Amino acid sequence: MAMNADIITAAVLVIGDEILSGRTKDKNVGFIADYLTQLGIDLKEVRVVSDDEAAIVEAVNALRKRWTYVFTTGGIGPTHDDITADSVAAAFGVGIDHDARAMAILEAHYAKMPNAEFNDARKRMARIPFGADLIENKVSSAPGFRLENVHVMAGVPSVMQAMMDAIAPTLKGGRHMISLTIDSGLGEGIVAGPLADVQKAHPSVVIGSYPYIRGDIFATNIVMRSRDQSKLDTAASAIEAMLADLKTQQQAQF
Amino acid sequence: MAMNADIITAAVLVIGDEILSGRTKDKNVGFIADYLTQLGIDLKEVRVVSDDEAAIVEAVNALRKRWTYVFTTGGIGPTHDDITADSVAAAFGVGIDHDARAMAILEAHYAKMPNAEFNDARKRMARIPFGADLIENKVSSAPGFRLENVHVMAGVPSVMQAMMDAIAPTLKGGRHMISLTIDSGLGEGIVAGPLADVQKAHPSVVIGSYPYIRGDIFATNIVMRSRDQSKLDTAASAIEAMLADLKTQQQAQF
Repeated sequence: MAMNADIITAAVLVIGDEILSGRTKDKNVGFIADYLTQLGIDLKEVRVVSDDEAAIVEAVNALRKRWTYVFTTGGIGPTHDDITADSVAAAFGVGIDHDARAMAILEAHYAKMPNAEFNDARKRMARIPFGADLIENKVSSAPGFRLENVHVMAGVPSVMQAMMDAIAPTLKGGRHMISLTIDSGLGEGIVAGPLADVQKAHPSVVIGSYPYIRGDIFATNIVMRSRDQSKLDTAASAIEAMLADLKTQQQAQF
Repeated sequence: MAMNADIITAAVLVIGDEILSGRTKDKNVGFIADYLTQLGIDLKEVRVVSDDEAAIVEAVNALRKRWTYVFTTGGIGPTHDDITADSVAAAFGVGIDHDARAMAILEAHYAKMPNAEFNDARKRMARIPFGADLIENKVSSAPGFRLENVHVMAGVPSVMQAMMDAIAPTLKGGRHMISLTIDSGLGEGIVAGPLADVQKAHPSVVIGSYPYIRGDIFATNIVMRSRDQSKLDTAASAIEAMLADLKTQQQAQF
């Protein structure tokens, strides 16, 4: 895990019993993965933990020390099982209390809503660790927060996505990773051997093979990733040549 | 994380750069979560790591020591980036080689397939750590394996699901967790306060609240989980009474 100056890395921490029980199917990891790839940031690790302070503290501390950025989702609502803010404060060893900026945002929000009292439960959403910046929430007001390199976001996908848009301009993007996909039309067992040779000859391009099944067809997408367009193009030409050879061999068998 | 004799726990380890880049959206975690819940096994942690031996070894060793069972997905195909079997062998400190049982299965499989040679790449799929049991693959033959409490499965969902079916009879199921969902019809900020009181009064029932947005409606599902039906029923009655009170209060405001 050598660090390189222009490689920016990230981890996602999903917090919530409902994901682990299967009751809710996570949609946030895939969204954040795509989003970070677009920004040129490498997502390196994902963890899902339960609504348990010790588990959250351990994961936050492991991930924030290892990667450039950490993004958490879930556990910042008004109920007793929303313990993310308190757990992140504990992970950093800082205090937490109702935050004046967050209280003002929520007060204004509930003032506009008939029959929605700004009660103690809702005030819990203004609990922010000392020293954190707020993350704007254009969907439902209650803010997330950033403490050093840890970004704490909501679990509801539409809210999380709005928070990512608020965070994006504050991130230093790495150089963009460019990717290129070739559908080989061949089974993974056929392409595997020659593909390993192409990988050896082009070490600065990351080459992956992804088998798929559609109906009766077993075939393989080959994906190349690099930050350097010319190296990507050279590897792609090598793969096209390799596939042409393999198809000639296949036809010769009939 | 106290261990209780009739609590059986598990972790899932997803291995693959394609999930972290966003190119492939994971469907295996949700399936395994549901499956384990049905078996009465508590999924406690999920990790996603890249195709990197050091990362896989660290995650396998952290998870296998902490939880009853570990289930991995991905990285057991025939290509150079399929390094799960070798990494799991390294995590356990055991050797690995072509396994006679796996070679026989794959030989028989490819003998039936015209134009599919049982080449060196495909023979890679027979590399199994010493001391492991095979996990049957009814979809595409290449087996998974179990080493102590770690179950190594394919990443392609249909293959992984067939392997789970093969594994299930070998697992000691915990007592089934029973769950009950009540749609409160109310916002999370309204139910949060009284719900915390119900949770305090019923500590052996795990009560979660899950806000949802459907069109213009912001409301909350309340989910109760317990291994004891009568305790679950008692908590459910308390929540029904709480919701009736809240609705009376809401109507009184008009």
